[in-house]
Amino acid sequence: MTTLTRAVVLALFLLLIIQPITFAQKLDGFSVNGSQEQRRIEEQFRAVPQPATAREELRRLTSEAHIAGSPEDYATAVYVRDQMRSFGLQSDLKEYQVLLPYPRTPSIVELVAPRRERLQVREDVVAQDPTSSSRKIVPLYNGYGASGDITAPLVYVNYGLPNDYDALRKAGVDVKGKIAIARYGNSFRGVKAKVAEDNGAVGLLIYSDPADDGYAQGDVYPKGPWRPDSSAQRGSVQFLFIYHGDPLTPGTPAVPGTPRIRKEEATNLPRIPVQPISYGDARRLLEPMRGPLRPKGFQGALPFAYHAGGTNEVRVHLKTDIEFLTKTIWDVITRVDGSNEKDRWVVLGNHRDAWVFGAVDPNSGTTAMIEVGRGLGQLIKTGWKPRRSIVMCSWDAEEQGLIGSTEWVEEFAADLKSNAVAYLNMDAAVSGANFGASSVPSMWRLIYDAARDVRDPKTGKSVYDAWRARAWESAPDSDRYDEKGNEKPIATPRIGALGSGSDYTPFLQHLGVPSLDMSFGGDYGVYHSAYDSFYWMAHFGDPTFQYHVASAQIWGTVALRLAGAAALPMDYTDYAEQLRAFVNETARLANQKKRGDAFDAKPMLKAIDNLADEAEKIQKRRIDLEKQNSNSDRLARLNDALMQAERAFIDERGLRGRAWFKHEIYAPGFYTGYAALPLPDLRQAIEDGRVADAKEAAQRITEAIGRAGEVLKSGRQ
Amino acid sequence: MTTLTRAVVLALFLLLIIQPITFAQKLDGFSVNGSQEQRRIEEQFRAVPQPATAREELRRLTSEAHIAGSPEDYATAVYVRDQMRSFGLQSDLKEYQVLLPYPRTPSIVELVAPRRERLQVREDVVAQDPTSSSRKIVPLYNGYGASGDITAPLVYVNYGLPNDYDALRKAGVDVKGKIAIARYGNSFRGVKAKVAEDNGAVGLLIYSDPADDGYAQGDVYPKGPWRPDSSAQRGSVQFLFIYHGDPLTPGTPAVPGTPRIRKEEATNLPRIPVQPISYGDARRLLEPMRGPLRPKGFQGALPFAYHAGGTNEVRVHLKTDIEFLTKTIWDVITRVDGSNEKDRWVVLGNHRDAWVFGAVDPNSGTTAMIEVGRGLGQLIKTGWKPRRSIVMCSWDAEEQGLIGSTEWVEEFAADLKSNAVAYLNMDAAVSGANFGASSVPSMWRLIYDAARDVRDPKTGKSVYDAWRARAWESAPDSDRYDEKGNEKPIATPRIGALGSGSDYTPFLQHLGVPSLDMSFGGDYGVYHSAYDSFYWMAHFGDPTFQYHVASAQIWGTVALRLAGAAALPMDYTDYAEQLRAFVNETARLANQKKRGDAFDAKPMLKAIDNLADEAEKIQKRRIDLEKQNSNSDRLARLNDALMQAERAFIDERGLRGRAWFKHEIYAPGFYTGYAALPLPDLRQAIEDGRVADAKEAAQRITEAIGRAGEVLKSGRQ
Repeated sequence: MTTLTRAVVLALFLLLIIQPITFAQKLDGFSVNGSQEQRRIEEQFRAVPQPATAREELRRLTSEAHIAGSPEDYATAVYVRDQMRSFGLQSDLKEYQVLLPYPRTPSIVELVAPRRERLQVREDVVAQDPTSSSRKIVPLYNGYGASGDITAPLVYVNYGLPNDYDALRKAGVDVKGKIAIARYGNSFRGVKAKVAEDNGAVGLLIYSDPADDGYAQGDVYPKGPWRPDSSAQRGSVQFLFIYHGDPLTPGTPAVPGTPRIRKEEATNLPRIPVQPISYGDARRLLEPMRGPLRPKGFQGALPFAYHAGGTNEVRVHLKTDIEFLTKTIWDVITRVDGSNEKDRWVVLGNHRDAWVFGAVDPNSGTTAMIEVGRGLGQLIKTGWKPRRSIVMCSWDAEEQGLIGSTEWVEEFAADLKSNAVAYLNMDAAVSGANFGASSVPSMWRLIYDAARDVRDPKTGKSVYDAWRARAWESAPDSDRYDEKGNEKPIATPRIGALGSGSDYTPFLQHLGVPSLDMSFGGDYGVYHSAYDSFYWMAHFGDPTFQYHVASAQIWGTVALRLAGAAALPMDYTDYAEQLRAFVNETARLANQKKRGDAFDAKPMLKAIDNLADEAEKIQKRRIDLEKQNSNSDRLARLNDALMQAERAFIDERGLRGRAWFKHEIYAPGFYTGYAALPLPDLRQAIEDGRVADAKEAAQRITEAIGRAGEVLKSGRQ
Repeated sequence: MTTLTRAVVLALFLLLIIQPITFAQKLDGFSVNGSQEQRRIEEQFRAVPQPATAREELRRLTSEAHIAGSPEDYATAVYVRDQMRSFGLQSDLKEYQVLLPYPRTPSIVELVAPRRERLQVREDVVAQDPTSSSRKIVPLYNGYGASGDITAPLVYVNYGLPNDYDALRKAGVDVKGKIAIARYGNSFRGVKAKVAEDNGAVGLLIYSDPADDGYAQGDVYPKGPWRPDSSAQRGSVQFLFIYHGDPLTPGTPAVPGTPRIRKEEATNLPRIPVQPISYGDARRLLEPMRGPLRPKGFQGALPFAYHAGGTNEVRVHLKTDIEFLTKTIWDVITRVDGSNEKDRWVVLGNHRDAWVFGAVDPNSGTTAMIEVGRGLGQLIKTGWKPRRSIVMCSWDAEEQGLIGSTEWVEEFAADLKSNAVAYLNMDAAVSGANFGASSVPSMWRLIYDAARDVRDPKTGKSVYDAWRARAWESAPDSDRYDEKGNEKPIATPRIGALGSGSDYTPFLQHLGVPSLDMSFGGDYGVYHSAYDSFYWMAHFGDPTFQYHVASAQIWGTVALRLAGAAALPMDYTDYAEQLRAFVNETARLANQKKRGDAFDAKPMLKAIDNLADEAEKIQKRRIDLEKQNSNSDRLARLNDALMQAERAFIDERGLRGRAWFKHEIYAPGFYTGYAALPLPDLRQAIEDGRVADAKEAAQRITEAIGRAGEVLKSGRQ
């Protein structure tokens, strides 16, 4: 081959490779010309984030432990603000004064019987990991657990959820007056605290079982990425399924002048001491236990048959000494004003505070946000402005109870209700290479489309293709092959429902702002430990820092499309379909629990039919209007309807027993914790066998779906 | 209530309880009057077996270790014979001279690197269990493993099956020249030996992982029924999927005068040393291993992340010293002659030899057989005789390779072909309370019916009801509820397919005798160990010995029905339906493996349609003829057809590469071991991608099904 031929072949080859990304078809919400321009902008943007800068940002952010309210936390806020300002962006701190818990002295956990033995309750120094010897590492504790000093027999309650206590009751084990020991997993730890308290436990230990988070998953740190035997998971046990944020200012912002309730009045705080321990320590407690052999599903991966305990043969002394202080926290708010629609906001959020160093959780996300800021700064330098405003929020005190985001949402609720187009969350953005997302259904297609346009560093394919291939590989055979054994076409990867556990919660579930959450996951066994460190990230999570870059690219791409589209790229036909699935699933569960009488699906399905119909109609209108780049009234009405349809799912009366939660479709379950319980009030009423409540919940949901249909209809006027 | 009223109420109550059993409808294969008489006989029979006698029999049988070929084995043969004779039955020993392996000296397993450490390779004495200190307990060894003295790096091969080696190859680990360590489970251990050898391993260790058989299942012996850390599973590694029985007389009986092949010519013996070890010992070897992290599915329940090894960091010395001796073994054959059809035999079988004491495996079955003998003896004393002959066989040397049964079948093949109505196996009859069965489909209804007429000791319901309730409880939700969430009617409990691993194998798979296998299972963690003892049984398996009684009752009930029915209670419509399911499943698998071209299901399905049609027709004829008690020619032709239809599945050319196996529908898979691989030659050819072989196999199967249809047709003449 001549050099020329080679060059031509190479060019053709590159064209083939790049073609699907560069010359892909029109973008949703943009005209044909608008799409070309938008793609040009996006490519400029995606070229900015770099592994080297990301690496340096993460190193800076994680050089010291920076728990919320600490001087080190403040230093990270200043760092983020200054970085953003250095890109030419407007960035400022926003303070709140909130109630935060800190251990006054390290907790004591000791075996009293069958022998006296004090447990370590401290993470080992790992020689290879320089930050692991820091003296500023906060002792192991659960945020908002009570102070206490108790000695009682121990009961092993498995994951500590209601069905676990049912199984124990069946086995004749009573938890009342005893200390419960639960393993992490299957729900949010605050749920475990609430359920333990409701069952009469006087204290709760929570440990990471090696079956779920330790050697059964793979090599342990520092040999591998998994949790070693001295490591425990810190974390808040606020009852955030009741309300979250500052416990003393529910529903109002924790700013000077806002009246505080007394701590004793707060309904989202446990009354019992709660303490996290390692599996190395847990083994000391669990191995000598007697009482009935563990019920089905209770066995973990410690090397003995687990027993339920509850007998005097194993007694434990637990002492926690927590001080509750009113502290200042610092959100960092960075704004890029829109050109055409300045008062329409695309909000990006990630928290910055960490239990310890927080390399994955949350500062991989903070790094991605800084890189997004760097990219936007570059665009702005070329004279570009987004059509709508972009607001980037670096939240504080998320770990203790989504506090920085919740207080901000409560302070700016009115503005957000009228202005917020969408909320785009990234928390633990990078712990590996596996892309995943949760979202309201109206943004599913937006996520798929953006994932098609970002390159997956490991495979060289698009993030979407890698995601889809992984979904297919991990699917059960029944999803991969039809009944004749033929391969089913590769399914669309699943996008999850938003429950709770990160800062999208106040946006979606208090205000009805369309929200999504994205991350690249992997083997992540150092969650909320001192080992979630720069060393861990550089050796296991993302050694090349290319996934930090990819995170910034996909986050920014979604933001730029929402901020730049003439007509908002939101699709309510997917929402209607998802609602139909939720309703059918709920009907199925009601029948299965022999409570079919509690729920008549028909009116709800009728409202969904109407919503689906309106969704199709507005979809057509959207395609008509996206050709306009100018701000016609019709376009404004269309966009307002697409933005406000989600708000229609808000019922201002709030959910039963937790009025702060107002979204009729999505909420964390009382017992599911992080996971969403769709149609929450209806599902919970059916679970509990409360027929009248189920009927009322169904009525409210039907109304909410009806309202959403009306809002969409108004968008066609 | 007066005493009289009370008595009446009690009587009514008893009537209600007993009614479904006592006055149940007509029995399959009997006239209305014949059914009444049969039920009377059966009830007399079922009243005989008693916990006290069963307990004493098991105690006697298990008082000494009685491995095949030992004086203690001979003593148990004499005991069984004499018991049967004491009941008035004709009983005799039948001797064979066979090649048996014994450890000359205990095996040595030692770690050479990373440190020198000799493993225990011996089961601890358990103070509570008096027999566990016996000096006659055979050292831990695998029957027919080769002698050897090797030192090599160790590779962890998971279950040691072909896909495990594939996973290792993908991970870059070569087994050639190394010692493999496999865990027990998922297949017969002889398969593990064959696959290790085929992959170039120079030795094989097999251990019981606590995930499958140890503390992860429950409390370990003597606290609970599960395998403790010094216990290992003995067992044969004969390649019994090629042929079984005496290795030196394949296809012929091992009696004086039969020519022997040389041991080196036997194709069913491993060439490498194979050694069972405990998980206590295995931990010493596995924990220091390096090399790639275990592939998916390789992790067990030892408390560390498993690695594949294969590196010089862990090297092992294995020495086995086995002597192969020609020894006499003793079957015990007990006969009850039939009145009308003396030359039609209903054969019951259970082996008697044990690796050590064999309380569960096999002497719970031997006890049940003695109790059946006791019951038949009682009936005979009343002047009763069965219509057909009943033959009860206490097999020897089953553990080494189904030897006692295979030699007997080979010796009396011609008689059995013409005379054997059915073979009813019980091996480890009782390890708990959970009834289960495997069978050819023609006897499914017979098993269900018998299970309806035997009381389950624990629940007081029928064995059938307890079985069905358990099947429903353990089914996945998708089998329990329809898509609307409504409870599905309780399914019929599943009866498995017969693979291999017990003495039904020669009857069904060499001769085509309709066969079944039944047992009451439970938490059984002492399989093939010194702890499968009377103490274990009396504390965990069946403390009241009521399940030994139930075993005798159900075994005898099935036998009495087959021996007493005018028209044999065999149903080929179930067989046709099962064949259809096998064919569809095979087609599905072929498609899934993208080998749809290897297999055209149509001719086979057509043959099945014909079989189903003939099955229905003979069923009608059967209902006509069962009214006759006399021996008409038509009845004889009907019964011969029902008996011989199973023989029609035999193809005298035998299966590919293992001509001893002749059944075209059922055989153990080359790799599935104990489990049946239905349509074996076809399935294996598809797996291996041998298209021409698949076509030939399909042809043979189609012919076999065609023959079965013809045989059934001949029964209507």
